[in-house]
Amino acid sequence: MLPALAKATAALGPRVAGRVRTMASHQLRVPPPQRLLGPLSVPSRLLLGPGPSNLAPRVLAAGGLQMIGHMHKEMYQIMDEIKQGIQYVFQTRNPLTLAISGHCVLEAALCNLLEPGDSFLVGVNGIWGQRAVEIGERVGAHVHPMVKEPGSHYTLQEVEEGLAKHKPVLLFLTHGESSSGVLQPLDGYGELCHRYRCLLLVDAVASLGGVPIFMDQQGIDVLYSGSQKVLNAPPGTALISFSEEAKKKIYSRKTKPVSFYLDIKWLANFWGCDDQPRMYHHTTPVIGLYALREGLALIAEKGLETSWRQHREAMTHLHERLQGLGLQLFVKDPALRLPTVTTVAVPAGYDWRDIVSYLIDHFNIEVTGGLGPSLGKVLRIGLLGCNATRENVDRVSDALREALQHCPRSKL
Amino acid sequence: MLPALAKATAALGPRVAGRVRTMASHQLRVPPPQRLLGPLSVPSRLLLGPGPSNLAPRVLAAGGLQMIGHMHKEMYQIMDEIKQGIQYVFQTRNPLTLAISGHCVLEAALCNLLEPGDSFLVGVNGIWGQRAVEIGERVGAHVHPMVKEPGSHYTLQEVEEGLAKHKPVLLFLTHGESSSGVLQPLDGYGELCHRYRCLLLVDAVASLGGVPIFMDQQGIDVLYSGSQKVLNAPPGTALISFSEEAKKKIYSRKTKPVSFYLDIKWLANFWGCDDQPRMYHHTTPVIGLYALREGLALIAEKGLETSWRQHREAMTHLHERLQGLGLQLFVKDPALRLPTVTTVAVPAGYDWRDIVSYLIDHFNIEVTGGLGPSLGKVLRIGLLGCNATRENVDRVSDALREALQHCPRSKL
Ligand SMILES: Cc1ncc(COP(=O)(O)O)c(C=O)c1O
Ligand SMILES: Cc1ncc(COP(=O)(O)O)c(C=O)c1O
Repeated sequence: MLPALAKATAALGPRVAGRVRTMASHQLRVPPPQRLLGPLSVPSRLLLGPGPSNLAPRVLAAGGLQMIGHMHKEMYQIMDEIKQGIQYVFQTRNPLTLAISGHCVLEAALCNLLEPGDSFLVGVNGIWGQRAVEIGERVGAHVHPMVKEPGSHYTLQEVEEGLAKHKPVLLFLTHGESSSGVLQPLDGYGELCHRYRCLLLVDAVASLGGVPIFMDQQGIDVLYSGSQKVLNAPPGTALISFSEEAKKKIYSRKTKPVSFYLDIKWLANFWGCDDQPRMYHHTTPVIGLYALREGLALIAEKGLETSWRQHREAMTHLHERLQGLGLQLFVKDPALRLPTVTTVAVPAGYDWRDIVSYLIDHFNIEVTGGLGPSLGKVLRIGLLGCNATRENVDRVSDALREALQHCPRSKL
Repeated sequence: MLPALAKATAALGPRVAGRVRTMASHQLRVPPPQRLLGPLSVPSRLLLGPGPSNLAPRVLAAGGLQMIGHMHKEMYQIMDEIKQGIQYVFQTRNPLTLAISGHCVLEAALCNLLEPGDSFLVGVNGIWGQRAVEIGERVGAHVHPMVKEPGSHYTLQEVEEGLAKHKPVLLFLTHGESSSGVLQPLDGYGELCHRYRCLLLVDAVASLGGVPIFMDQQGIDVLYSGSQKVLNAPPGTALISFSEEAKKKIYSRKTKPVSFYLDIKWLANFWGCDDQPRMYHHTTPVIGLYALREGLALIAEKGLETSWRQHREAMTHLHERLQGLGLQLFVKDPALRLPTVTTVAVPAGYDWRDIVSYLIDHFNIEVTGGLGPSLGKVLRIGLLGCNATRENVDRVSDALREALQHCPRSKL
């Protein structure tokens, strides 16, 4: 018997000893891993990909705070502050507004809004629409993808054709299509959907805080975003809000959502969005919520308009610098370019992987390649939240110039 | 038009200006919330409930580190270290071992292992079994609950009767039933299940690291646990591992799991558990994974046996102190008492809420009431990881003595 167990056993009397002895018939066969015994080491890096971005100092400080209980009244206060912060950045007065732990927020939206057999219309002009299709199918909806090239967007007319043809209960659009760098216009889409008795679901993960969006005024029924982009908080939490109509659809479902974890009725209760006393559902990511609160506090302090302006100015400067290097922007129409994530056509003769590696290896700067349908076509440069500065634009542009000089180039 | 937008617009030429002007026809109607503008304040608290527990100093430090990309090679190294750490604390050599973001780990297990129509046998002797029933039903399985009083456990004979009768593909048992304080024995259960061609799924959220468990030697097919108990890391991540047989069941499914977010094939790929290059699935909670790594590193450094002994010693001391106060332990059989979470019968004449409030208000110490079927019956005292010390036992016992003197007591 292992000495530790023998000692513990001796103190416990015959009945218990018998049971502990049974356990001691097992042995520790998997030793503690050597690599885990060394210290945690994290390189210092400027994250100028499409997110996650660097943490703001105030967010970093929150990450180092001690735990409190997830059901303590101080935690409920923090949650209430987060709710108000989300209402501010979303520009909504929806009571059903909360944060979700984990990056399942699209899945949370779909599995609560859709019932098996529901018609679901999806704008697929990049990877996020593909995801919505995949999840919609798993949930058992009738999914109608409107497939377009990466780099394109949806006009009101295209959407209206889809609505008329498929009579969907829900339309999915991506506001900031971060895989292609497209900014989807949103004015008029909510109104149009409502004329067809369809709800409008918008993914603003990559755009929120960097580009104007007005949930209530634009008639968006469900809006979600993430923590790790413009809010400069760590990944692990996500923001979501539901209009009265969306709430009605959820609360009058005939079937339970297949996910208990993502069941909005439970989450709404825990976030104090109904009149019932809060009931334990799952242990929320307390420290992640501290950090999210601070990310929201930063943008509340600065003001949305200042934040939008800073992103637009940084983008304008970046575009100038990139064009100065002879690079081509992937999105042709300036009005459709996403300020937070810029896509650059991979320059002829280069392998995008070489450029990405060169920047990490020589400058500790992250930019990334494409994703999903834009893979191999673009480089993506993110200027998110506190990273959206003139200085960072100059750093990444100078680094890119050097990469273009040193990376191998095939003859054309 | 808002001045910030007007300025941004002016720089952009006519086409863009037109579009921006459209957006400026909306106004900021929801102001920044006042309460969010103040600093984040977090009270200092000793968490002696059933979890989350306090963060260890090393874990706290990890929470204050800066981001790196979720797909950087340094992050993959940290993930590999986490995998090895899980293999150590689980005592398994399963390659399909990984961490999940969010507290959906039970749901992840069930939605991957069960297909609609599968027979699923569940030990329901507390809230966690109730949850397994609820989720199993949503997933479309035929669920067979074996309901017993909170405080009880399952004998090999009882399990065998259930297996013979219902021919399940999966049995769910809770190792550390934290709502009732019961430690479910596990020796022989895996073998028994396998004789009936059933997989064994064990919830070790509240017990892992505090009580011996040997995944491989005990024939456990799926084992999961959480970050916020004995590992002293923040809530938001969870550990899970699958035996070869469990993996086979998952990889030979006829239907896709309804959740894309929790699809183990995708997660296995991202965690390097298959031979394919890692593909983006979702943005993992990078900082949460730093913290999880440190929680695992601490227990690897200390050694499982030392950790088990410390929990048993702290428990023994707690039981002595509680009995010295005239309190009754809820679980009668000493062999079935969970070292990490002790349940005390609510003393006659008291309202458990008064005692819990007294400890928070006068000592900043958290203990909790019951949960689910044990609500109103017990007080729960957790001694988890670095909180499992003699000193903490004395603090909470002294505080309890004072609470018993000062809380109102009805005449009996
Ligand atoms: C045995 C057991 N299982 C599952 C859970 C659920 O963990 P979470 O609240 O993190 O989802 C807990 C939490 O207390 C637990 O004690
Ligand atoms: C527009 C958009 N939607 C959704 C996501 C998914 O976020 P996550 O990776 O956190 O799940 C991203 C991440 O880059 C995104 O840019």
